[in-house]
Amino acid sequence: MEPVYDVAVIGAGPGGYTAAIRCAQLGLKTVCIDDWQIDGKPAPGGTCTNVGCIPSKAMLEASARYEETKTVFPSFGIQVGDIRLDMPQMQSRRAAIVKQTNEGILWLFRKNRITFISGKAQIAGREGTGYCLKVASDTPQQLMATHLIIATGSKPKAWQNLPFDESVILSNTGVLALETVPKTLAVIGAGVVGLELGSVWRRLGAEVTLFESLPAILSGADREVAAEAQKQLVRQGLNLQTGVSVQSVQKTVDDVVIRYSTSQGEMKKDTFDKVLISIGRVPNTEGLDIESIGLAANDKGFIQVDDQCRTNVKNVWAIGDVVRGPMLAHKAEEEGVAVAERIAGKFAKVGFNLIPWVVYTHPEIAWVGQTEEVLKAAGRDIKVGKFPFMANGRARTMGSTEGFVKTIADARTGEVLGVHMIGPNVSELVAEAAMAMAFHASSEDIACICHAHPTLSEAVRESALNVQSRALNL
Amino acid sequence: MEPVYDVAVIGAGPGGYTAAIRCAQLGLKTVCIDDWQIDGKPAPGGTCTNVGCIPSKAMLEASARYEETKTVFPSFGIQVGDIRLDMPQMQSRRAAIVKQTNEGILWLFRKNRITFISGKAQIAGREGTGYCLKVASDTPQQLMATHLIIATGSKPKAWQNLPFDESVILSNTGVLALETVPKTLAVIGAGVVGLELGSVWRRLGAEVTLFESLPAILSGADREVAAEAQKQLVRQGLNLQTGVSVQSVQKTVDDVVIRYSTSQGEMKKDTFDKVLISIGRVPNTEGLDIESIGLAANDKGFIQVDDQCRTNVKNVWAIGDVVRGPMLAHKAEEEGVAVAERIAGKFAKVGFNLIPWVVYTHPEIAWVGQTEEVLKAAGRDIKVGKFPFMANGRARTMGSTEGFVKTIADARTGEVLGVHMIGPNVSELVAEAAMAMAFHASSEDIACICHAHPTLSEAVRESALNVQSRALNL
Repeated sequence: MEPVYDVAVIGAGPGGYTAAIRCAQLGLKTVCIDDWQIDGKPAPGGTCTNVGCIPSKAMLEASARYEETKTVFPSFGIQVGDIRLDMPQMQSRRAAIVKQTNEGILWLFRKNRITFISGKAQIAGREGTGYCLKVASDTPQQLMATHLIIATGSKPKAWQNLPFDESVILSNTGVLALETVPKTLAVIGAGVVGLELGSVWRRLGAEVTLFESLPAILSGADREVAAEAQKQLVRQGLNLQTGVSVQSVQKTVDDVVIRYSTSQGEMKKDTFDKVLISIGRVPNTEGLDIESIGLAANDKGFIQVDDQCRTNVKNVWAIGDVVRGPMLAHKAEEEGVAVAERIAGKFAKVGFNLIPWVVYTHPEIAWVGQTEEVLKAAGRDIKVGKFPFMANGRARTMGSTEGFVKTIADARTGEVLGVHMIGPNVSELVAEAAMAMAFHASSEDIACICHAHPTLSEAVRESALNVQSRALNL
Repeated sequence: MEPVYDVAVIGAGPGGYTAAIRCAQLGLKTVCIDDWQIDGKPAPGGTCTNVGCIPSKAMLEASARYEETKTVFPSFGIQVGDIRLDMPQMQSRRAAIVKQTNEGILWLFRKNRITFISGKAQIAGREGTGYCLKVASDTPQQLMATHLIIATGSKPKAWQNLPFDESVILSNTGVLALETVPKTLAVIGAGVVGLELGSVWRRLGAEVTLFESLPAILSGADREVAAEAQKQLVRQGLNLQTGVSVQSVQKTVDDVVIRYSTSQGEMKKDTFDKVLISIGRVPNTEGLDIESIGLAANDKGFIQVDDQCRTNVKNVWAIGDVVRGPMLAHKAEEEGVAVAERIAGKFAKVGFNLIPWVVYTHPEIAWVGQTEEVLKAAGRDIKVGKFPFMANGRARTMGSTEGFVKTIADARTGEVLGVHMIGPNVSELVAEAAMAMAFHASSEDIACICHAHPTLSEAVRESALNVQSRALNL
């Protein structure tokens, strides 16, 4: 007799492990299966923990300090002798933070009495009211569950037929683990991953060139924000090639040759030590055998779900990167919690319009709600208020005055429809904007709330005030 | 004939200059008078800009970087040679930021067509429906205004009859401007000013001893937060002497001798290079001649006002540190804007319960709403949720995992009554809590709002979840 669970969660990324925890909190007998391993040990947490959000922020934090030491420390009154990069230490710090997070998740599984199996799950058909899973692991096993939550995430999209070797042709995985600073690094795709990891290696000394087929970077962001980001990143020394068409990426003995046509149609060829391919991610259902129970996926491989994460098969749910919507850890978490609550018979809703976006470049970029372009295209009558960090006291004391906050409100009701930011620590400021929008705040509401002085958050208020052209410090 | 204004604002600190701007925005003919000068030039902005919020944050930012270089940089993989403090540069950076802010305010006056007079104002009685002011300046002048807004702020309280010489016996003014790092620094009073400026000089190499008469630091803060702060600050090397009674502070030829009895009643004597007296601030009405129009002040010198900042004299208003309530720049600003709107015949309300507090130590401390102690004393039935930054992914990538967020909610309705934080960047996280409380959010409301991953703000949500014992990552 196989063990029987109320819920089997396949994948222990942020969506999967969070879903499992919420299921367990709600009294459901839960198993979570995940096959990620590091050094032969289970490494739950998915892309986010192992080769995404967490290690990239570890490297962004370290590389930012390294660069600051060289660039702005003298202006702060701090003189240092020779500055040396201790790459093994920087990398082992990254690995230690990842390991700590892996172990934290394993601890959460134990604490919540969730069965965790380190192995690869395959759906093996339906039996009675449940589903059968085969798990390939050290000791292969089978189990039954009434509900399945598929949270298998995504994987980096390769450039045409060129496989990632993670030594010269890099995905996020390989580029995070480089043991030395490449002299030259090409990045194909100037989205979030390309800009963050391109920034890391530029700060550490690489000559970084980004190739973007669109005319501007960060296609999902508000255009004014993207333009400011482009200006700042170029000023920092990132070589941004927009509107280019990459023709070929060829690995040679020592390096990689990229042939491309520029936005003016000129053919060019450049040679790099390494290339990061960051042209997007594809849903990961490899080896899952979704066909065994007739689970529908679309032509791009995403499992089809409704807005409640229900698939076409009863009691089978799918969440996170493997379904439609933004590939963001916190979107997956929201869906995971909501599905757990639905399984437990509770009401749950994910506010897809209120999912914040963050890009951890310097300056940081963050937004929630709609961009000016989308709202105008939809014919909405809007008013816009902006406030620059140059006029913010705390930004000046930090020596980080680039960027601005932009609040977009409905012209008639004043309801805030989007808040777009580029500047210091805006990753943390966006929470306030999301909170306000969750309560359908008007820009006047935000403007009425006392903000501590001196804080960067005052810029959020000032931008809201400026929707009615009444910023105080501008 | 003297020039006649709708409004005369006395004092150009954050309360005064903000009130003047709002008055001008509302179409009132406004004059603002302020006598602060630096190097013979007008220096509007008051204590906050000149010797408070802004320069202290400039020094906190610089000193934090200096210390980080020595303490945590090796763990990040950054090796630096000898680290040298360039004190003249650190100080000239501080002065430059102050000057930039002074000039920004002067620019705002011009832009808003506010008459600014650099000089000392004295109330010279009532004439008809207005008030007469004499201004002592290079060219003494008189003017008339229908409304007066008194925003003269506060000044540091001296220790008994010991005057500040700003060389050995220091107020916030002198301690910010030290040209060398004292070997030993005593700080009398472990409130916000004492802890922030004590931290600055400890980071830069001074041996800092704080004397606090109360049994714990930060009397207004939640006790758990204050206890954590005490633990962290002591760990950093601040010598915190609580529950002591300072008997005498004596200046000698070369140094200062402090005699005090410890919490065990033992008499002690210690010698320091310098002492910062940070035992509070007193309202500043010096030379204003409030008696000339019969303006009432209380026995401590605060101008008496109602909750709308109306004094006992018609059309005379007072705001900020010179009236009751917390001595915070943003509280003064709120009152300034509200008074401007009342003068213009508009409705305005200051939400005194929603004024956030911030202490810029490391870790930072911030809160909004009521403490657990105050709520319990009032007999409120409450539930508390806590979440440590140790369990927050972004804090781990920053290497800054001290502290926690604590959410206090009404046990019956779930309404959030207070949010108390100690940890990295909590100065910016408190805005979200204030926003939520302004909308009378329940802890469940906060918990339902998607927070970007990985951000510190996730800890705010988790603490709200934990009010119902359902944090996900703990």
